[in-house]
Amino acid sequence: MRCAVISRKFDLRSYYGKALAQIADRIESVDHPVTEGADTVRIALAWHPHPDAFECYPNLKAVCTIGAGADNVLACPSLPKHVDVVRVVDPDQAQMMAGFVSWHVIWHQRKFATFMQHQRDRIWQRLEQRPASGVPVGILGYGKIGERVAAHLAGLGFPVLAWSRAPKPLPAGLRGFHGRDGLFAMLAETEVLVNLLPLTPETRGILNRDTFQAMRPGGYLIQVGRGEHLVEADLLAALDSGQLSGASLDVFAVEPLPQDHVFWDHPQIIMTPHDACDISADALAATLVATAVAVRAGERPPHAVDRQRGY
Amino acid sequence: MRCAVISRKFDLRSYYGKALAQIADRIESVDHPVTEGADTVRIALAWHPHPDAFECYPNLKAVCTIGAGADNVLACPSLPKHVDVVRVVDPDQAQMMAGFVSWHVIWHQRKFATFMQHQRDRIWQRLEQRPASGVPVGILGYGKIGERVAAHLAGLGFPVLAWSRAPKPLPAGLRGFHGRDGLFAMLAETEVLVNLLPLTPETRGILNRDTFQAMRPGGYLIQVGRGEHLVEADLLAALDSGQLSGASLDVFAVEPLPQDHVFWDHPQIIMTPHDACDISADALAATLVATAVAVRAGERPPHAVDRQRGY
Repeated sequence: MRCAVISRKFDLRSYYGKALAQIADRIESVDHPVTEGADTVRIALAWHPHPDAFECYPNLKAVCTIGAGADNVLACPSLPKHVDVVRVVDPDQAQMMAGFVSWHVIWHQRKFATFMQHQRDRIWQRLEQRPASGVPVGILGYGKIGERVAAHLAGLGFPVLAWSRAPKPLPAGLRGFHGRDGLFAMLAETEVLVNLLPLTPETRGILNRDTFQAMRPGGYLIQVGRGEHLVEADLLAALDSGQLSGASLDVFAVEPLPQDHVFWDHPQIIMTPHDACDISADALAATLVATAVAVRAGERPPHAVDRQRGY
Repeated sequence: MRCAVISRKFDLRSYYGKALAQIADRIESVDHPVTEGADTVRIALAWHPHPDAFECYPNLKAVCTIGAGADNVLACPSLPKHVDVVRVVDPDQAQMMAGFVSWHVIWHQRKFATFMQHQRDRIWQRLEQRPASGVPVGILGYGKIGERVAAHLAGLGFPVLAWSRAPKPLPAGLRGFHGRDGLFAMLAETEVLVNLLPLTPETRGILNRDTFQAMRPGGYLIQVGRGEHLVEADLLAALDSGQLSGASLDVFAVEPLPQDHVFWDHPQIIMTPHDACDISADALAATLVATAVAVRAGERPPHAVDRQRGY
């Protein structure tokens, strides 16, 4: 089966070449735009596709996307309604996110920014340390990744609160919230806010002034959802006023972050280039093969997103 | 009961004033040197006591020390043989250490030093990320704290190896080693080495050239034991040669670390001022009270160290 490789943001082939090579006997990958035999392309691998990307593949049945969120493909205007959008499910991915988020929570709890400044200034000074039990963490989005993140933070002794669109069963010790009232009830008790939400019309701009204002003063934001969740000006104002003491940002409305953006050298912001969790070559290869098998059989591929819901 | 507060390194009273205040109705704390009524002092709270500190307390029965290791008190030449040395056992302490060590392991695994340098230089560049399963962590010292650290790292997906003086039962998934042969067998598979050992004549200098050489090339050291475990020149040589890619140091042979020490601005070293884990005011207060009760009853206080063994 032929698979078009489509991205305008990121060199998918060089990054996932290993995955594509290991399944080359079953799936022939060709770079977009495919000039010859575009009608034989039945699946695609895409990340932030060009707006007109899907126009030239009349027999496309399914698009696999990397990353936990499918919004980058769903937003493409040329995506036909009947095409399935498939997420890669990587068991290591939730674990990588759990480690990444825990790192930023502890960065805040243990005052590592101050320690590092002290090292640069050659200042030997112990800092008053709070046990994890004094630092409640609120998690926005409680799917497969949120579950794992919550479990790890709870294991480290942090009180964990979790907010999701609809009520969900939670393990003992976790407190769940849902709906708009639930959101503000959770924020009132939250010191560290972790955003793991999918991007949908309802969640766009959810990290805004009202949200920050509802948190405990001196709170901390860990933004690992999508750039469009955050109202950047509101974050800067909350940092200026001290309502937030700092923020860890992995995703941005414009990526790569423009060279002149104020986030780069903001003293209260620590940032990474959309690298919080990555899918493995093995997981991507397995997803592409499973998608091809399903398409060939005329079935819906596993892990196809609910296009109405957006995830 | 009267308790002498003894320290030449650290202002115990200002740091633990809250703990002393909350038990003031049961234990009267007096600062060393006690000039009047020294013969009524029956217990002490000490951290790096002056060499002659214990000479003036003829009726001293027990000394409580902060921190997980008692070596700072045991090394005091004026400590009488019959005096019990008591460690504070704080259930939060192992958890704090688990969070602290996990942070440094993830710092190495996820290349946060490079990310932070890139932020300073305004470089947007994803870095190849390895799942935790590819980063084996070897733990030196498997007591109460080591157990907790190992459990958390295993939960995050790191392969965990643990070395202790004598063989110990381990939970499923952990691999145990002991003795000198066991040490080198573990090191051969270790990428990140975490030192949680107590300081004894056998463990002094255990972090040396041979140890680093036996690890996987490009390994990483997390030193949260005692400064005297480390041969500093050997660490610097291992960093220079690339045998180690970096080190996190919380403890030092001389504390505070001298202003002109090369560690302060070494690009591959991240350091904290002996602050990896702290006991809580509540835990210290409870230990002092339990010690006073035992002394009054003529019994051995709980958590008194085995002076032969040193911990």
